[in-house]
Amino acid sequence: MSVERKDGLRSFFDPRSIAVFGSMREPVGEGLTAVRNMLEFGFGGRVFPISRSTTEVLALRAYPDLEAVDEPPELALVITPPPTVLPILEQCGRRGVRAAIVATEGFAEAGPDGAALQQELVRTARRFGMRLLGPNTLGVLNTARGLVTDPYPLRGNKPPAGGVSYCTQTGFLTFGVHPIRDIGCPISKICDFGNKCDVNEADILPYLADDESTKAICLHLEDIKDGQRFLEAARMAVARKPVLVLRPGRSAAGARAASSHTGSLAGNDLVYENALRQAGVIRLRTWREYWETPKALSMLPLPRGNRVAIVTATGGAGVILVDAAADAGLVPASFGPSTRRLLAGLSPRMGGNPVDVGPLMSVRDDPFNVYLDVVPAILADPGVDCLAMVCHLGQPIVEVLTTLAPDIARSGKPVTTFGYGIDLPDMQQSARRVEALGLPAYLDLESAVKALGAAAAYVRRRALLEGRPWAGR
Amino acid sequence: MSVERKDGLRSFFDPRSIAVFGSMREPVGEGLTAVRNMLEFGFGGRVFPISRSTTEVLALRAYPDLEAVDEPPELALVITPPPTVLPILEQCGRRGVRAAIVATEGFAEAGPDGAALQQELVRTARRFGMRLLGPNTLGVLNTARGLVTDPYPLRGNKPPAGGVSYCTQTGFLTFGVHPIRDIGCPISKICDFGNKCDVNEADILPYLADDESTKAICLHLEDIKDGQRFLEAARMAVARKPVLVLRPGRSAAGARAASSHTGSLAGNDLVYENALRQAGVIRLRTWREYWETPKALSMLPLPRGNRVAIVTATGGAGVILVDAAADAGLVPASFGPSTRRLLAGLSPRMGGNPVDVGPLMSVRDDPFNVYLDVVPAILADPGVDCLAMVCHLGQPIVEVLTTLAPDIARSGKPVTTFGYGIDLPDMQQSARRVEALGLPAYLDLESAVKALGAAAAYVRRRALLEGRPWAGR
Repeated sequence: MSVERKDGLRSFFDPRSIAVFGSMREPVGEGLTAVRNMLEFGFGGRVFPISRSTTEVLALRAYPDLEAVDEPPELALVITPPPTVLPILEQCGRRGVRAAIVATEGFAEAGPDGAALQQELVRTARRFGMRLLGPNTLGVLNTARGLVTDPYPLRGNKPPAGGVSYCTQTGFLTFGVHPIRDIGCPISKICDFGNKCDVNEADILPYLADDESTKAICLHLEDIKDGQRFLEAARMAVARKPVLVLRPGRSAAGARAASSHTGSLAGNDLVYENALRQAGVIRLRTWREYWETPKALSMLPLPRGNRVAIVTATGGAGVILVDAAADAGLVPASFGPSTRRLLAGLSPRMGGNPVDVGPLMSVRDDPFNVYLDVVPAILADPGVDCLAMVCHLGQPIVEVLTTLAPDIARSGKPVTTFGYGIDLPDMQQSARRVEALGLPAYLDLESAVKALGAAAAYVRRRALLEGRPWAGR
Repeated sequence: MSVERKDGLRSFFDPRSIAVFGSMREPVGEGLTAVRNMLEFGFGGRVFPISRSTTEVLALRAYPDLEAVDEPPELALVITPPPTVLPILEQCGRRGVRAAIVATEGFAEAGPDGAALQQELVRTARRFGMRLLGPNTLGVLNTARGLVTDPYPLRGNKPPAGGVSYCTQTGFLTFGVHPIRDIGCPISKICDFGNKCDVNEADILPYLADDESTKAICLHLEDIKDGQRFLEAARMAVARKPVLVLRPGRSAAGARAASSHTGSLAGNDLVYENALRQAGVIRLRTWREYWETPKALSMLPLPRGNRVAIVTATGGAGVILVDAAADAGLVPASFGPSTRRLLAGLSPRMGGNPVDVGPLMSVRDDPFNVYLDVVPAILADPGVDCLAMVCHLGQPIVEVLTTLAPDIARSGKPVTTFGYGIDLPDMQQSARRVEALGLPAYLDLESAVKALGAAAAYVRRRALLEGRPWAGR
């Protein structure tokens, strides 16, 4: 990929300035709403509302057209009716705009006339060397810059900044319709591909692979535009950071549904499965995995192998987690003699894995400190690659994990937690405090080991790609 | 099973009166806490605290021993140190107590000495014809009676009353450690088996099969005590109502973990899988399914077959749900000509299944009323057995579903919902209002079709058991 094409992508996520084309009508004009969202998210660049009907939008100067703007905007956001989009892109190209997001619906997804018009957009953009995202897209989000292009009211509901970058083919899988803040989903960048008339998954991967603030890349792909180029890009990205893919259409019925939703051929799943695996990509299967697995890969060190220790305040959860670990490609770690001796010394019923600390907690005056006795020893055991903890989620466990955080960090091993309790809002608050310590905190039991399984699978596939041996089993 | 043995079980869940043996010490004596929980849950029967150190417990008269009580208590709850349990059971037996819950830990699960003492408990109980639950159990819950026996502070956090009865082998899967109220889990009865020294799964199934307020039975089984008797009981229960089982130990590693947790042989999973399937039992695989699937079966009419319609406000979710439906044994319904005509008349982009109402909603002034146009027609289509709806969860959808509820009820077809939104507490509130209409409301996408798949699987297996044809594919 040429430097020029990569630069074009930078303009989508990190532009100096953005021009917004769309209705500035109070209270719900799409252009107005997009501008308001940018201001509420704290976008630091210049914003140029383009409007013939007003000279001011939310205390910003509005311009009748691009010629009136004193500098060429780097990015344009277009949310105007389909027939107006082509002349606007022509105007953008002439003024030196580097990249344009066409949010407008009604192109290829609406039928042959829309598809023909969409082709015109591409031709015009190419003529000016301008990159296009969409049409039929919510555009982009960059939490670090406060850049957002959604034309729906977001009411300042900015996702927490973090290391996961999402690219999706449906507005359903961006942040604007899910409780991202409540479920703790730390986001670097989001890109909604829309109809992929120009920018697609093969373009975005090299950009995000280079992007320092992106620690894990998660893609939702109903179709793949250019399989060969995508797999090449995926392999190169996987060499730098984890790439996860939710590709619906696993079932025959699902493939037909995907094809009718995007208008493209979705293809046989087995072919995809093998190709993705060979490219080192981790496959996600559910909506929950899409939101919950990438954050662990963005936050945690990578495990050397796939041997998991489970420390649980309740034996019943441990048994269920061992099944989930097996499903996720993990094996229960066998502890070394010194770890076994230490555990058995604390309680005659401990020593195996899962480590059920429940009975010991029930006889101790300082039950939560049991974790302080147990966790450092387990993390120091060379037979352990990663750790999942099951704990009653609340103030005491937040304090214990705060004490343990330096030990955990020193061990260099990934640790995830599942927390249970009776009050969901309290649990959510505590979970966010645990995650502030760098430890993913899930309220769904199996998520804690699924995330570790994905991390181990990534390490294994990357080793295979690079012809290195892998320490797992 | 003799009438006498069944009566014994009734005494656990529906006793006239209960004697509580355990520390009545303020503020956290186990006996005191159990009595407080009962009072806070509104238990209507008589409660007799047994204590030599006080004459009053929470404004109830306390008794030095059972002899001092003016009537024989029907049920006893014992939460005293292990060596004291046997003489207490002897006392209970002599006084005519029908059933005893031994909450105390430290019996078979603690080693050979505990196992021997546990055998003594059984011999004593049998001598008096008294049934035993436990030891090492949290006991029972009956929401209709306000009966609860947990010795941990529950702070009045009573689960909503409903039609699911849970039986579990771990305190982790009862209501006391999960946000049952927040996640909307309508419960009839709960029973924690503990060590199963007397009452086990084969005993409980006939009782719950007969119990009118139990609409679906959900069991967590780390082991099965008497396979043949259990399968017989399961077949008989399945003929009356759905029976769902979470049996961990699916993987070889999980089986070893289950065996070390319960001290019993967990057995080869394939054998279990086949036996459970032949008995008509629905197998659950995850913690989330355990809490989320049974409620749908307790609330909804049963589908005739397995053809699912999906109505979604976002096409992307529909594609993911088709995969999940295939995983759950459902097939996408093919609509009849009149349904297809009606849908295409509303929007040229509708007519297939999933029904993506998003584009139509985006051009209507009354977007949410689109559901009123679409849902009754789909439910009236003879090619549709069940329906999953994906909607933005909030006030408008609650109103729409309130309007639709009579149509849905008249159709006799099961309908589940998945709701999305950006504020989790708001979504949880709206979900509870949707469930008050009789429609399960999930905040996890795939749960909506998993539940319908379980309902269809139940209908299929019951038809097979009864040698009837099944309408599904």
